[in-house]
Amino acid sequence: MSRVSRRLEELGLTLPAPMQLPPGISVPFRWARVHGNRVYISGHGPVDQDGATRGPFGKVPSEVSLEAAQEAAHRTGLAMLRSIESEIGDLDRVTAWLIVNGMVNADPGYANTTAVINPLSDLLLALFGDEIGAHARTAIGVAALPLNLAVIVSAEVEIA
Amino acid sequence: MSRVSRRLEELGLTLPAPMQLPPGISVPFRWARVHGNRVYISGHGPVDQDGATRGPFGKVPSEVSLEAAQEAAHRTGLAMLRSIESEIGDLDRVTAWLIVNGMVNADPGYANTTAVINPLSDLLLALFGDEIGAHARTAIGVAALPLNLAVIVSAEVEIA
Amino acid sequence: MSRVSRRLEELGLTLPAPMQLPPGISVPFRWARVHGNRVYISGHGPVDQDGATRGPFGKVPSEVSLEAAQEAAHRTGLAMLRSIESEIGDLDRVTAWLIVNGMVNADPGYANTTAVINPLSDLLLALFGDEIGAHARTAIGVAALPLNLAVIVSAEVEIA
Repeated sequence: MSRVSRRLEELGLTLPAPMQLPPGISVPFRWARVHGNRVYISGHGPVDQDGATRGPFGKVPSEVSLEAAQEAAHRTGLAMLRSIESEIGDLDRVTAWLIVNGMVNADPGYANTTAVINPLSDLLLALFGDEIGAHARTAIGVAALPLNLAVIVSAEVEIA
Repeated sequence: MSRVSRRLEELGLTLPAPMQLPPGISVPFRWARVHGNRVYISGHGPVDQDGATRGPFGKVPSEVSLEAAQEAAHRTGLAMLRSIESEIGDLDRVTAWLIVNGMVNADPGYANTTAVINPLSDLLLALFGDEIGAHARTAIGVAALPLNLAVIVSAEVEIA
Repeated sequence: MSRVSRRLEELGLTLPAPMQLPPGISVPFRWARVHGNRVYISGHGPVDQDGATRGPFGKVPSEVSLEAAQEAAHRTGLAMLRSIESEIGDLDRVTAWLIVNGMVNADPGYANTTAVINPLSDLLLALFGDEIGAHARTAIGVAALPLNLAVIVSAEVEIA
């Protein structure tokens, strides 16, 4: 059993199924683009365990609470991990997290985008440790997100 | 004749002239920063065939329709390709598209930024094929863009 | 004395102390993530000389003037340089600036985000020269930033 899989189990977490889009929708990009020793991860939102896109939808915090947005960030992390695993086979091949970009569908002037994205950073550190899991991060509030999702996150990792 | 040039011709497309800024305006960055085996592409908007900045300007969809924004994304792709070509000489040197970041000047909560940027992704796949043209992508709605453009896009590619 | 340090001195500039967060706040990411020959720089805002987070806070230009936002961008550049230096020891190890992402807490439709970020690009060119300091750049207006800062900037550089 791989190291990251064991950590997931210890934390009581299960990766969701690969991302399922609503019927009739396809996208002209890769959820995780593998090239050389890098994986570039497209903007992901949270999914259910079966991989179906799920909310919360709307503005943080007027329509989606900080707590609900934080849970969405955590779920988004799990969705990203599944997309990476689907491409590279084993998450133990990740040798370094590099960049995490958190985008929050925020009310103008919302000052707490950092707190929204923290659970995803915490998840990466818990699963990959302080060295491999370390990453630069930016967490911004945006005017609009695909499907009116409350949170999406993109990233870049190094792989062996 | 290079492969990408031939594909452009087959599709009835012509790259615009290099980006022309309005008189008196210069920028302290590179439209395409080449270093090692990478080209980092600055946020581009659409241009006319002579390279002049053009609209549409304003918010999608209240001031700029989805269709007009999609055409802008397509034109933006051509402008980016010209900037890359100006730096590296031949687009056949591109060995992999890696990241595309689409930014839409969107009304708050606009749920369809994905559709706005799709024509640019489709263009890359049509010109470079499914392997070289594959890319990770994020399409967000932002509060404001330079010159009040409706769409800008940045990117990263690998070159030989 | 290193080349960049001398240029700072010639320009009458002093890097601030390392970033200090408000008491009780810590962040689960690195301000500058060093890996291989890259430094990935998290979204930074301006700091005082003692490294404390400072404003301006609020929307550009309705709450924060263009001029105040430009000064914030300049200070943000100095804060980023300190974060890089803290990790790699000597800014002369930077062999190429690659990407600069400027994010302005902007009123909807504000057309001048380019001007807000220019002082930071000018600073990089003045300190590192036209070759090492050259960078691709995107300057967008966003709905919200951490702490309601008026400006944050992220970046990627190559190091020897």
